[in-house]
Amino acid sequence: MILCVCLNPALDVTYRVASLEPGASHSVQVVAEHAGGKGVNVARVLHQVGAGATVAGFCGGLAGDEVAADLRRSGIATQWTPIGGHTRRTVTVVSDAATVFNEPGPSVETAEWEAFLAAYPALAADATVVVLSGSLPPGVPTDAYRQLTELTDRPVIVDAKGAPLQAALHAKPDIVAPNVSEAAEMLGRDVGAHDAAHALRDMGAQVAVVSDGAAGFAAVTPDACHRVPVARLVDGNPTGAGDAMTAAIAEGVHNGRSWHETLRRASAWASAAVAVEYAGRIDTDLAAELMDHVDAEETPCP
Amino acid sequence: MILCVCLNPALDVTYRVASLEPGASHSVQVVAEHAGGKGVNVARVLHQVGAGATVAGFCGGLAGDEVAADLRRSGIATQWTPIGGHTRRTVTVVSDAATVFNEPGPSVETAEWEAFLAAYPALAADATVVVLSGSLPPGVPTDAYRQLTELTDRPVIVDAKGAPLQAALHAKPDIVAPNVSEAAEMLGRDVGAHDAAHALRDMGAQVAVVSDGAAGFAAVTPDACHRVPVARLVDGNPTGAGDAMTAAIAEGVHNGRSWHETLRRASAWASAAVAVEYAGRIDTDLAAELMDHVDAEETPCP
Repeated sequence: MILCVCLNPALDVTYRVASLEPGASHSVQVVAEHAGGKGVNVARVLHQVGAGATVAGFCGGLAGDEVAADLRRSGIATQWTPIGGHTRRTVTVVSDAATVFNEPGPSVETAEWEAFLAAYPALAADATVVVLSGSLPPGVPTDAYRQLTELTDRPVIVDAKGAPLQAALHAKPDIVAPNVSEAAEMLGRDVGAHDAAHALRDMGAQVAVVSDGAAGFAAVTPDACHRVPVARLVDGNPTGAGDAMTAAIAEGVHNGRSWHETLRRASAWASAAVAVEYAGRIDTDLAAELMDHVDAEETPCP
Repeated sequence: MILCVCLNPALDVTYRVASLEPGASHSVQVVAEHAGGKGVNVARVLHQVGAGATVAGFCGGLAGDEVAADLRRSGIATQWTPIGGHTRRTVTVVSDAATVFNEPGPSVETAEWEAFLAAYPALAADATVVVLSGSLPPGVPTDAYRQLTELTDRPVIVDAKGAPLQAALHAKPDIVAPNVSEAAEMLGRDVGAHDAAHALRDMGAQVAVVSDGAAGFAAVTPDACHRVPVARLVDGNPTGAGDAMTAAIAEGVHNGRSWHETLRRASAWASAAVAVEYAGRIDTDLAAELMDHVDAEETPCP
């Protein structure tokens, strides 16, 4: 089982409008509602490809009930820590572009965080790999991902940014996977994907995978440097492409794959996620096709 | 008691953003959630001024639960007919302008509409005046307001547009109160507020009150023609100003006031509603102040 920690899940609501006119009143043409949040998206992709994933995090209020019900319907295992606050919603208005409104997360009480911490070690012990992904809701300590990395001996993948990513690096996580702008913001300087991956390793990560949109991504492992192109430039919804990449990395660790193989899969899944309207899903036919085409350049580290 | 029929209530969600940029991702700064829909707004204003109002309509799903809970917290009486469908939401994004997204209403089954019809006569019999306000959800017959007007001997106020308004006029309702663009659309021709009011009387209404934004409103009763200016041009949120006007008309019928007095109050409440951020509330101090200033011109009908 792959444990996907999602401390700040969301009810993702999608509206379709003919065109978005600020100041106007719009009739919504389509309404979709799905459980979301980066950790949920990672778990959903893993579930789609048949890798068992369990989502763990905080859930509360009516939006939380809908998040839990949606994952139940999808057949994805969950271990929620209940909270008094209300799980956030996101509203995405899709026209020619996607305009997103993110509600603030719920306030998590100290006792609720402690309840999660008490449940976590046993959950992680059942996992082959632990994914720590996405933002922290208010009230959860900034070093949450450091604590969760230290509390398990399982391989940990951290996909975070800002202070939570910086704190996590102190625990020397096995893998970090931010995008280049998140890495640059944390490093406090303009930096390319390859240099960012080296810097993240210098700060404590064993492996750093840094994505850079259409430029593909760079990975630095203890043994080699990798440059991986985008498998295919696909028109669609780029939200969730990073989560599909994280899912592929988790799947690679879970199945003991080589980094070369895992990174090619990560590139294929990221492109195959853009082709699907909603985050947290990939076009599995496209993913299989792209795996035959994408290559990754592997060089000894300097 | 004033019965406020709201067949298509909504959970009104309000987001505040610094500025709305189509295609961008926004952190929502403030989230507010209130029960809404025109009939709910009318009842809320009546409740605010101490006139007892009961809301009746359809309610279902989690958004419906929130609508019911919000009105309970507000101390407003309700008589909901439960439905299997989900009460709609509206999302209003407030920056320098208000951008509104309206979900489609739930589908109401024939048996659900019949359950409402069965409960309605006794509710209306307890009322001094019945307000039929707002849109009809899918599944409710277009002539719903005609049926509801015919099923009671109480004075009826219809605030509707399009085919539901047209059908209601066949039942000769006591009062209709659309705005001028709604009246013009139904009449199929460009028309001013005064001419629209005459046309609505010709089609069956006993009294027609037609609002025209900053130009004030026109009313035609069996005895006189009235022109009422806007009490004060107020900066703020014009959503709900029409509902405050309808509430004032209902209050006037309920308390046996003269039309001259009622129309002055309608103008004062409409301006006092614009001054409040959310629909369904008036600034009662401002309303009292404006009542001392607003006047209405009354002339014998031609």
